[in-house]
Amino acid sequence: MRQQSAAEYLSHGQIPFFRLPSAATFADTDAVLLGVPYDGGTTYQPGARLAPYHVRRVSALTGSWHPVHEVAPFEKLRAVDGGNVAVPPFDAAIMRAQVEGAAAAVYSAGAAPFVVGGDHSITLPVLRAAAKKHGPVALVHFDAHFDTSGPEVWGEAWHHGTFLRHAIEEGLVEKGQLHQVGMRVYKDRGERKVVDEFRAKVRPIEELDEQSPRAIGVAIRDAAGKRPLYISFDVDAIDPAFAPGTGTAVPGGMTSREAFAVLRALGGCNLVGMDVVEVSPPLDHADLTVNLAAHLLFEGLALRARSL
Amino acid sequence: MRQQSAAEYLSHGQIPFFRLPSAATFADTDAVLLGVPYDGGTTYQPGARLAPYHVRRVSALTGSWHPVHEVAPFEKLRAVDGGNVAVPPFDAAIMRAQVEGAAAAVYSAGAAPFVVGGDHSITLPVLRAAAKKHGPVALVHFDAHFDTSGPEVWGEAWHHGTFLRHAIEEGLVEKGQLHQVGMRVYKDRGERKVVDEFRAKVRPIEELDEQSPRAIGVAIRDAAGKRPLYISFDVDAIDPAFAPGTGTAVPGGMTSREAFAVLRALGGCNLVGMDVVEVSPPLDHADLTVNLAAHLLFEGLALRARSL
Amino acid sequence: MRQQSAAEYLSHGQIPFFRLPSAATFADTDAVLLGVPYDGGTTYQPGARLAPYHVRRVSALTGSWHPVHEVAPFEKLRAVDGGNVAVPPFDAAIMRAQVEGAAAAVYSAGAAPFVVGGDHSITLPVLRAAAKKHGPVALVHFDAHFDTSGPEVWGEAWHHGTFLRHAIEEGLVEKGQLHQVGMRVYKDRGERKVVDEFRAKVRPIEELDEQSPRAIGVAIRDAAGKRPLYISFDVDAIDPAFAPGTGTAVPGGMTSREAFAVLRALGGCNLVGMDVVEVSPPLDHADLTVNLAAHLLFEGLALRARSL
Amino acid sequence: MRQQSAAEYLSHGQIPFFRLPSAATFADTDAVLLGVPYDGGTTYQPGARLAPYHVRRVSALTGSWHPVHEVAPFEKLRAVDGGNVAVPPFDAAIMRAQVEGAAAAVYSAGAAPFVVGGDHSITLPVLRAAAKKHGPVALVHFDAHFDTSGPEVWGEAWHHGTFLRHAIEEGLVEKGQLHQVGMRVYKDRGERKVVDEFRAKVRPIEELDEQSPRAIGVAIRDAAGKRPLYISFDVDAIDPAFAPGTGTAVPGGMTSREAFAVLRALGGCNLVGMDVVEVSPPLDHADLTVNLAAHLLFEGLALRARSL
Amino acid sequence: MRQQSAAEYLSHGQIPFFRLPSAATFADTDAVLLGVPYDGGTTYQPGARLAPYHVRRVSALTGSWHPVHEVAPFEKLRAVDGGNVAVPPFDAAIMRAQVEGAAAAVYSAGAAPFVVGGDHSITLPVLRAAAKKHGPVALVHFDAHFDTSGPEVWGEAWHHGTFLRHAIEEGLVEKGQLHQVGMRVYKDRGERKVVDEFRAKVRPIEELDEQSPRAIGVAIRDAAGKRPLYISFDVDAIDPAFAPGTGTAVPGGMTSREAFAVLRALGGCNLVGMDVVEVSPPLDHADLTVNLAAHLLFEGLALRARSL
Amino acid sequence: MRQQSAAEYLSHGQIPFFRLPSAATFADTDAVLLGVPYDGGTTYQPGARLAPYHVRRVSALTGSWHPVHEVAPFEKLRAVDGGNVAVPPFDAAIMRAQVEGAAAAVYSAGAAPFVVGGDHSITLPVLRAAAKKHGPVALVHFDAHFDTSGPEVWGEAWHHGTFLRHAIEEGLVEKGQLHQVGMRVYKDRGERKVVDEFRAKVRPIEELDEQSPRAIGVAIRDAAGKRPLYISFDVDAIDPAFAPGTGTAVPGGMTSREAFAVLRALGGCNLVGMDVVEVSPPLDHADLTVNLAAHLLFEGLALRARSL
Repeated sequence: MRQQSAAEYLSHGQIPFFRLPSAATFADTDAVLLGVPYDGGTTYQPGARLAPYHVRRVSALTGSWHPVHEVAPFEKLRAVDGGNVAVPPFDAAIMRAQVEGAAAAVYSAGAAPFVVGGDHSITLPVLRAAAKKHGPVALVHFDAHFDTSGPEVWGEAWHHGTFLRHAIEEGLVEKGQLHQVGMRVYKDRGERKVVDEFRAKVRPIEELDEQSPRAIGVAIRDAAGKRPLYISFDVDAIDPAFAPGTGTAVPGGMTSREAFAVLRALGGCNLVGMDVVEVSPPLDHADLTVNLAAHLLFEGLALRARSL
Repeated sequence: MRQQSAAEYLSHGQIPFFRLPSAATFADTDAVLLGVPYDGGTTYQPGARLAPYHVRRVSALTGSWHPVHEVAPFEKLRAVDGGNVAVPPFDAAIMRAQVEGAAAAVYSAGAAPFVVGGDHSITLPVLRAAAKKHGPVALVHFDAHFDTSGPEVWGEAWHHGTFLRHAIEEGLVEKGQLHQVGMRVYKDRGERKVVDEFRAKVRPIEELDEQSPRAIGVAIRDAAGKRPLYISFDVDAIDPAFAPGTGTAVPGGMTSREAFAVLRALGGCNLVGMDVVEVSPPLDHADLTVNLAAHLLFEGLALRARSL
Repeated sequence: MRQQSAAEYLSHGQIPFFRLPSAATFADTDAVLLGVPYDGGTTYQPGARLAPYHVRRVSALTGSWHPVHEVAPFEKLRAVDGGNVAVPPFDAAIMRAQVEGAAAAVYSAGAAPFVVGGDHSITLPVLRAAAKKHGPVALVHFDAHFDTSGPEVWGEAWHHGTFLRHAIEEGLVEKGQLHQVGMRVYKDRGERKVVDEFRAKVRPIEELDEQSPRAIGVAIRDAAGKRPLYISFDVDAIDPAFAPGTGTAVPGGMTSREAFAVLRALGGCNLVGMDVVEVSPPLDHADLTVNLAAHLLFEGLALRARSL
Repeated sequence: MRQQSAAEYLSHGQIPFFRLPSAATFADTDAVLLGVPYDGGTTYQPGARLAPYHVRRVSALTGSWHPVHEVAPFEKLRAVDGGNVAVPPFDAAIMRAQVEGAAAAVYSAGAAPFVVGGDHSITLPVLRAAAKKHGPVALVHFDAHFDTSGPEVWGEAWHHGTFLRHAIEEGLVEKGQLHQVGMRVYKDRGERKVVDEFRAKVRPIEELDEQSPRAIGVAIRDAAGKRPLYISFDVDAIDPAFAPGTGTAVPGGMTSREAFAVLRALGGCNLVGMDVVEVSPPLDHADLTVNLAAHLLFEGLALRARSL
Repeated sequence: MRQQSAAEYLSHGQIPFFRLPSAATFADTDAVLLGVPYDGGTTYQPGARLAPYHVRRVSALTGSWHPVHEVAPFEKLRAVDGGNVAVPPFDAAIMRAQVEGAAAAVYSAGAAPFVVGGDHSITLPVLRAAAKKHGPVALVHFDAHFDTSGPEVWGEAWHHGTFLRHAIEEGLVEKGQLHQVGMRVYKDRGERKVVDEFRAKVRPIEELDEQSPRAIGVAIRDAAGKRPLYISFDVDAIDPAFAPGTGTAVPGGMTSREAFAVLRALGGCNLVGMDVVEVSPPLDHADLTVNLAAHLLFEGLALRARSL
Repeated sequence: MRQQSAAEYLSHGQIPFFRLPSAATFADTDAVLLGVPYDGGTTYQPGARLAPYHVRRVSALTGSWHPVHEVAPFEKLRAVDGGNVAVPPFDAAIMRAQVEGAAAAVYSAGAAPFVVGGDHSITLPVLRAAAKKHGPVALVHFDAHFDTSGPEVWGEAWHHGTFLRHAIEEGLVEKGQLHQVGMRVYKDRGERKVVDEFRAKVRPIEELDEQSPRAIGVAIRDAAGKRPLYISFDVDAIDPAFAPGTGTAVPGGMTSREAFAVLRALGGCNLVGMDVVEVSPPLDHADLTVNLAAHLLFEGLALRARSL
């Protein structure tokens, strides 16, 4: 499969992710880009439903060759834009069903989904599809928050701060294979209890003051080995200076370069899916966050390309 | 009841609507300001949940004397800030129950609610409480849209584009006493059917090219007489130049001054409630829209003050 | 031809103008939407090259029924999105050739082009194609400026302030059938000389203080009769409060509603083409200008639909 | 005196008002543009100190010929940019002394000052100089507020809301020759008392719903006759849609075009000075307000040119 | 004392710092949050007067548990919001008297003030109160500038660039216990003379290229020992990428994480007060700077909690 | 030569770079600041033509003493603002001729040009003048991109992505003395071929994860020795968090501090010219990028001052 040329892109005016071909079915593909324009799980500032559109827009400008992995993802991968999952803005249950269905279609074709949210509640159904295909996965979870809230806070069990609790309870993640990077907001002393009992490897943001991001990435890769690996990237793991367009920004986060370094150090892993979530264009400026999101996806696609 | 002085306001740093006293119960009040931080009914760009906070902020700067009605609303009215209605961001049914409960508490104290949304789906429960107290009301509905959609568009019967259909079906509005001002988006040829059958007086935006806003207001007032009158003001009735901070802006709307002129011409009506909805601060700039919303409320409070 | 449904649109994620079908050839069409991402003719603030993308984005949200003309343009017209004309950003001569070629293809199919610039230099090649098909046209030119500069100002004969001089000199406009609306910037006492000698009907902005926009539109329509009529709409005809996203904004312009009223009064004319130019998204906010541009196009399409 | 050509302007990179020559002394001039970068009198949102810089910047783009007065102000007037008055940001007394001195220098040269504030407290010293030269003036005061506060509100007699009280008390304005346009914020029932006792002709904003702006301007001109006339233009007289960049914006104001129409109707008056104040660039966007300020000055300069 | 729950916060709509209780008197408290809405000491871009409001707003979203100090500041500390100090915007002398009085009230209750400016001139009166209570303090001064200007620059001895000179001259800081972090703007060769003679430990920004922020913090803590320690944090110590909302931003500053690391390394110190100043919301975007300011306060409160 | 005092600056209102004297001829100068308001070579988002104006504006606020080089550049250097090079916005050939002429005038006076673009196509003519004076130079090229495109991509050999290919082909750079810092976008596997064959020392961004910026700078300085050295700084070398105002931003770039550290480590080099390009004010916010550009120039001027 072939990217559009710059000329085609310019004359076309309709922009799929990375100028890839659009496809409604996924046979003979390796990677399927999907958008999920849903932010009904947001507790504070909404807007993430608008991310797929804007990430598509800026994704046309990324490069094509990955200099560290030494791979051209769009040459090596058979990658397509699968469009947006049709989700109503109001109904979380329908959203979960639709997203799981779309991800399952990707997996049944032997491909990996690369999903642009939407808020973090869209991750759970992708993980369900991943686990149905591959069994419990190794999960690399970038975030400022633990996302293990229960129903007691908002009177609701399913929102963007609870996906991980469900994923753990449903057995979608392999015990000991939860890797969390960037954490820096604690509701209370006990907030780590859920992930600690799950033997998660938590790497709070202050660990980056003492270890290189590359070392952290290598440790994760080595721990995961050839297990199916899924990356869920909440863009608020990154500092708001680099990613202002997100609904619950927390100062003191990763730099873009640190995030890239962690991801690049995963080279050789068996990536079976990725999402980038909580990108809120109305809060963005100068496309900082949507551009970053596109480059995070590119890193994931390069990991996938390298693994094939 | 007494507004804070400018000095109190400056030293306090916490801002209720119009520097009014806060109150949790409403006995011996005439008007209760409420916020409803809910935008779960939005179909396109969300953000209206953040409006109560910012409208409160700028409301501290409005004047105190209304030069046309010749009334000082905060002297004549016993007005309080009743706080925000506690609504979860995800659950429309709970929102409707909570808002109806809060509005009912206002009505049972003999006062009138002045509600800052939130999206337009918050109006229905206020109207329910109004109709329980006063019977079917005369409704003045400012909007760019008809808001009579049914479940067929989004697969969901309850969102910000359906409130009026429910209000009509539930008998909350008196037949022949629906006054719509500012309409200018038509989904199809039949979109007016619902309101036409209800004998609504539709005044689409182009009517303002031929009649003065004052004439339109006077006609509405005369038609409503001493009926209980409720004003639902979707800020997208106003042109986006004056109200950019809204999720589904439509060019070619009313000016702020035309809106004030229509409202002022209602002087002498029996105002029993008002809401200002669809104000989305993340899309606003220079506080244009939140400031306008505060002044629309001031017009409503002056109408209420004049009627007592 | 058929618009996408809201659901199709939502699930597709790629947005042609007004959710219309895309087409590379134009047989059996009545109207072809084209983008020209070119701002190489800008003398002051550039950015208009980015307009086609953003106007497409917001055009998905306009209505479908025109309440004044009583027509559903997308039902009555066979309308398609013809994509962007492939133009290099640096070469005005190539741009002119490409745009004229694209417009000629539209005309040879019997359709009318509706073009989103780009700066005002993109109008000349469309007019050339129009005049080749229809002979000299009646031109309705909305603008704050006369656009009759010569090469003496910038040492260059072809830029966004000279299109009209060339159009007149090349005989593309019928003498006495140049209608200019919104003019309010004068370089010197003699600036009107070119258009006055051409017997243009200049309606400077102050005329709108004395005549209704409807009357102005009716006068233009009556003067043009059944002549082929072309509308070139420089968005800076509109006041910057309504259209901040333009490179040479001038205070004191038309309101959006006045512009719509003039356009609507043209009903019954023989519209053979339209452009909306000088929309600069980097200078816009809250999509005011791109949204306005989409609605201006909608007015033009409704005129075209009514005339068939 | 001669404006720079566009080429000179482009190659120079330093922009005096309207590309006029700079001058430190004012002999043989008719009009002197001055900036006063002072906002120490602001009670709410500051920022007006930055206006002179940005108004200079955009003033390079206005036209040169005034189509209604039929005059080329920069040909007819000997106009110069007198630079900024050197004022410390903290000391109101020094500011007043410096500004009065600068204005006096202009008057002693037989010229008229055109001053860009700064907040409204900079007007008083200009008026003092004007009255020393010409005796009590006729004052046309555009504003949303009356600006007749006393020391009781902020514990301070000299701030941006008190200039008019001082001007009246000091006899700088002729009784019966205070014309106020745009007023729409009332602190209390008695706020008009000061100006009513002064027999001011108050034209609150709602008068514009019933009279044309031209009629209002003509009435002012006829009332003033050949008296020395001074215009103090607080940009918040204009609606925030047109002038968002101001510290105490009030919805429901004049349009830009209405302001121009009032000013143009003053043609034939004896203009001896003008200021444009309360322009706050940090709150502006897309240069709307600074561009409007430059055009307001241009109207004043054209009045001056016409009167010579 | 008890924070509001998220539900209380949501339903209340009025936001004290960190959802703490408000209090007018401070008996039985350990920490009092105060706002000082004053920017009359600003030499360049004002706006810091608006910071207390916006920092309060976003402070509702910070966490409650500090993972490095292992303390829950709002459980351990008896902390209240003491409101804003009532200061007129124009009068520096009154401001200093009011702020010193408010801080003295905090100190006489045995608590520590945590003050949100306002510009840096608000620090001097807090330091005066601190020194009256505790004697000369150890001062940790984060800033891009030295703030030791004298009256010669602006003809005024008291502004936001002179606080430290006064503090030194008045003996409010212990000789040898002035620690300056982040300095990177030098007016001239001699600018460090004042602080060098005071035996200050200056750590200019380039020191962070060679030492870890933790090492710098530890060195400060060890040097200060159990002395009463005061932190004055000018947010322009941080790079404008992280803190754009400040009036005299200087590129090349600290990252947010470096600032947190320095502050965290002070653990065990005897913190008796803190201020965060020069936060200018009109220049901010996406709440970057106000959010950072809230988190800096949280770090200070955690230090205070740990020390009790 | 002498900078204006702060008071002169304040009272003058016209701002040359760094408040330096303006000059049209350059005899007896060491450094000449020039602006080139040209962005006709931009392939994606334009706007860089507006940079000279805004960089001048903020340059008035930088410091005067360089603490690392221990030099006061404006005392040691005879530096002037040479104004903007007069370039039409449309014609690349005229631009190149004009810029080369202006730079040649600087060189013939024995001075060094410090040029603010404009897009990167303005560098080539400066390099031509440099090489005519000094022979092939050592070039330090900061950028995210290689800028060695040929005519095949856009059908045009001369745009902002081709300057380096021309410079190499024309022999303007000494073989082995091309130092590239910050590269991180690769069109394809072969993109480095041009520079690799030229024996360039490419230091892609990931090298900064392993070497200190100081070490990189020192290595460049040592390699260049006393050769004439030219710095071309495309601001997109810096991460968009620090430099959002640029047309083709790429996440994952240098921090401002890293850029300063590399530049400072060049101390002792023989700097014969510098440019800062691709600064696009319409895409900037809070002056981040224009302020950074001014400080980059200051670093260059300090290098020049130190070398004399």
